[in-house]
Amino acid sequence: MAVKAQVLYDFTAEPGNNELTVQEGEILTVTNQNVGGGWVEARDSRGNVGLVPEDYIEINPSSTQASATQYTEAHSQGYNSSSANTQGVNGNETWTATTWSNNNPADNWSYPEQEQAGNNGSVYSFDDEWDDDSDDGKSTGGYGGSQVEEGGTMQRGGGHSTMKIALNKFPGFSKTPNTEVFLLTKHITKGNDRLPIYAGEVGPVWLYPQTHLDCVVADPKKGSKMYGLKSYIEYQITPNTTNRPVNHRYKHFDWLYERLVEKFACALPIPSLPDKQVTGRFEEEFIKMRMERLQGWMSRMCRHPVISNSEVFQLFLNYRDEKEWKLGKRKAEKDETVGVKIFSTIDPELPEVDPAQVEQKYEMYNQFTRSMDNSVKELLAVGHLHWKRCTGPLQKEYRQIGKAFQNLSSVFNTSAYPRESTLTEALTATGKTYEEIAELVAGQPKKDLHFLMEINTEYKGLLGCFPDTIAVHKAAIDKVKEADNLVAMNKISQQDKHVMEKNLSTMSYTLQAEMNHFHSNRIYDYNRLMQFYLEEQVKFYETIAEKLKKTLGQYTTL
Amino acid sequence: MAVKAQVLYDFTAEPGNNELTVQEGEILTVTNQNVGGGWVEARDSRGNVGLVPEDYIEINPSSTQASATQYTEAHSQGYNSSSANTQGVNGNETWTATTWSNNNPADNWSYPEQEQAGNNGSVYSFDDEWDDDSDDGKSTGGYGGSQVEEGGTMQRGGGHSTMKIALNKFPGFSKTPNTEVFLLTKHITKGNDRLPIYAGEVGPVWLYPQTHLDCVVADPKKGSKMYGLKSYIEYQITPNTTNRPVNHRYKHFDWLYERLVEKFACALPIPSLPDKQVTGRFEEEFIKMRMERLQGWMSRMCRHPVISNSEVFQLFLNYRDEKEWKLGKRKAEKDETVGVKIFSTIDPELPEVDPAQVEQKYEMYNQFTRSMDNSVKELLAVGHLHWKRCTGPLQKEYRQIGKAFQNLSSVFNTSAYPRESTLTEALTATGKTYEEIAELVAGQPKKDLHFLMEINTEYKGLLGCFPDTIAVHKAAIDKVKEADNLVAMNKISQQDKHVMEKNLSTMSYTLQAEMNHFHSNRIYDYNRLMQFYLEEQVKFYETIAEKLKKTLGQYTTL
Repeated sequence: MAVKAQVLYDFTAEPGNNELTVQEGEILTVTNQNVGGGWVEARDSRGNVGLVPEDYIEINPSSTQASATQYTEAHSQGYNSSSANTQGVNGNETWTATTWSNNNPADNWSYPEQEQAGNNGSVYSFDDEWDDDSDDGKSTGGYGGSQVEEGGTMQRGGGHSTMKIALNKFPGFSKTPNTEVFLLTKHITKGNDRLPIYAGEVGPVWLYPQTHLDCVVADPKKGSKMYGLKSYIEYQITPNTTNRPVNHRYKHFDWLYERLVEKFACALPIPSLPDKQVTGRFEEEFIKMRMERLQGWMSRMCRHPVISNSEVFQLFLNYRDEKEWKLGKRKAEKDETVGVKIFSTIDPELPEVDPAQVEQKYEMYNQFTRSMDNSVKELLAVGHLHWKRCTGPLQKEYRQIGKAFQNLSSVFNTSAYPRESTLTEALTATGKTYEEIAELVAGQPKKDLHFLMEINTEYKGLLGCFPDTIAVHKAAIDKVKEADNLVAMNKISQQDKHVMEKNLSTMSYTLQAEMNHFHSNRIYDYNRLMQFYLEEQVKFYETIAEKLKKTLGQYTTL
Repeated sequence: MAVKAQVLYDFTAEPGNNELTVQEGEILTVTNQNVGGGWVEARDSRGNVGLVPEDYIEINPSSTQASATQYTEAHSQGYNSSSANTQGVNGNETWTATTWSNNNPADNWSYPEQEQAGNNGSVYSFDDEWDDDSDDGKSTGGYGGSQVEEGGTMQRGGGHSTMKIALNKFPGFSKTPNTEVFLLTKHITKGNDRLPIYAGEVGPVWLYPQTHLDCVVADPKKGSKMYGLKSYIEYQITPNTTNRPVNHRYKHFDWLYERLVEKFACALPIPSLPDKQVTGRFEEEFIKMRMERLQGWMSRMCRHPVISNSEVFQLFLNYRDEKEWKLGKRKAEKDETVGVKIFSTIDPELPEVDPAQVEQKYEMYNQFTRSMDNSVKELLAVGHLHWKRCTGPLQKEYRQIGKAFQNLSSVFNTSAYPRESTLTEALTATGKTYEEIAELVAGQPKKDLHFLMEINTEYKGLLGCFPDTIAVHKAAIDKVKEADNLVAMNKISQQDKHVMEKNLSTMSYTLQAEMNHFHSNRIYDYNRLMQFYLEEQVKFYETIAEKLKKTLGQYTTL
């Protein structure tokens, strides 16, 4: 008997991947439920057969309704359960459950995973199945494409690029204690985990390694599985430290990203991976673009002294064989130092910052990152418009100018007037020059604007993570602000308050070190970007001037 | 008792000219019928008082209905009366009235003056009143203006720029015999009127003078009349021959144009004067533009060996006082050598061209001028679009790019990071550079495209006159083609036929000389135009490259 399934979300097949495009509400016949990797094979009403993501459909709708509800419930319970977890630690049930959770901007502390639907990566990150596939990038977006409305901002991914901060994320596990627990606990950092912060020239800074870690992402290769039914792309990543390449698929990058978010996102903004939905209708273009962006992401991670030095990141770059990888994976997934706990490993070798100063710094960074976010988006919007103008109307117009000169030349050629040829030849050359200019104009954005857009898109992603990181900080500030009250009410001791302030100071140093890291990278990146952009622009205008000068020389001197 | 008047046509007042804007059908009260110069002073229903052109209104409608009809009748009779006039000459009433006028493309021979309405110039050209005013240019059109639709071609004047060929134009006078009369008459050219055609290097050419006549149109001055009620602009024209300036108002140029059309238009295309309706909402801009175009028109006339040497043109440039001008004017208006008679003064010192060759030449010229007309219009349309793009969206876009860089710089400035200043200063400079580029881009069309548009607009006007001139030629060809038939039918003698062919040969030489004059001017004009355009374009792109290079230098070397 045929198993029926209802489609829950629209899904567009990636060409050449044996996938099936389906629409919400459509009824499919499941032809093979056991293809694995999160896929089922199904047939639509028109008889087309192909693979559809398992979680995009509901098999036998009437019976699975209940389980969907269960999932939602478990999920929403998860957001509350962590405060229940803290009861045992501070021993004050009422205070935790009522006063604080009503008073603080608690909404900032739990991050509903809005972009979950259709993202297999996070669903499958628990199992160790090497063959899971999450390379199902649909091709949309990209700048300069005609599908984006004029004046609209460029979107890479679902608009808001928040990290999925690991706070309260896993209802079943209690890996992540919440911030009040952290603030009230006296921490002594020690061992390999210790993350020192020093006083640098520019203020508090991370400990930077002697040698600069970097890696090359290259050589994308197509592999296949499920008896050739599904294909995937494997990238070769070669770190400059070992010079030994390792292979990773997009889903492994995604796994690494998840680990970094879980572990560091309370302290460090972890930029999202390049989207699954990237530009390019053509597979090759898509792969090239993704690789370029994975390279950008990896280089940024390599440049970060804390991230690049972390065990999970080192594992990703340096594993020797599948066994080492699997063991390392399991270990990383069991890492207990995640969420706000990361602050307990941070050791600023600097005098304590007083809470007022902490708040002032916070305000400044908050303001800066928001303003820069706006400014970057403005630049992207303008760049996008300019891209469209260059490849659209401007190209067309220069072609028309070129054609008009050539047509005039053709007409002149028919005059039968004996002194015609110098002018007609020069006019034709002028026309051809303007046609060349049309192509230069249309091709230029790929040469310079592309890089400007890429860097700013990267920064847009990075800046999109700051609100989350900064919110953790802000919540801690608010809690410490209340400390006096709590002391007065005998809810906490004076000692507790000092511990809180000490811990807040550590958090502030973390933010300061991170902001200084951000600023130094930003100055480097934008300096490099602007120089590159202007160099290419100069070349562009000089080339045009040169071409026009050459054609000018063909006219007779009067 | 107040005199009432009904408005016949919409009239828009020229600002600052004491004129009154009125609409068709509106009833006015005439407050002064004796202001003169073709104007009356009137008051509208809202109490506004101002001047309205006499022929735009009907005073006391019921009584003037009859006179309006009379005018129309006299006019339409005029188109037919000239063939009646010819009866006495060729003595064959039936042949003239029926055979020929049915057979030939007779429509080409009479030119209804479609653009007459509201054009005071031609109405008043009979009287010698120095103070007539026809400077009532309404300001519309011009390229780059927002009122012209994208993609539309630029129009100067009422679309089709035909000359008002003097054939059959003046019902009362019999100055213009028609073509058949000319063809059948044996002409002997002699005296000062004789216009020789020589065999030049490029084929038949006019006799060119040793010294090149030119003049400078400059120094527009405002004058007024009717006790300051009406004002006009007087231009100073200084020929290079006498170096003595003469003053003329637009209406005198118009008078000259009428005389040239009347006398030469059957043989030479006489380009229309720059329109009364020229660009510019501001009087100064309007005057400047008109002067520039009058200069272009005068220079073109000066360059023509036949026109520049004509008595009426010399009078216009060289008259010494008002008396000489008035006498000259009267003489010119009484000139009998007008219309097709001009061919009788032409003396090609060359072997007779046989009719087949004449037709072949005609076809070629016809084809060429039509093709060039299309090509020039294409260039104007493209140029117009480019003008709009440069001053509109492109300027805006470069401004936006400039703003975006400057905004980013402003944000960076708030970082409080100590190593910021070099980047922010360079970024601000880059932003300002792009703002400068925006102004360069928007200002460029005025520097180079303007000249390209002006020259092509001039050529569009000139090419618009060729169909009329060429049609005279074509009709003569068709008549000569019928000569064999007419001989067989004993309507004309063999001798008559030879005279016709000889006269057609003269017409062909005229057209050839004129086309060679056109070609030589065209090559000169377009060569000069393209060089100027390209030089300015090179400068433009080099300036941009230079500016960008300068701002690039402000970034620190990595």
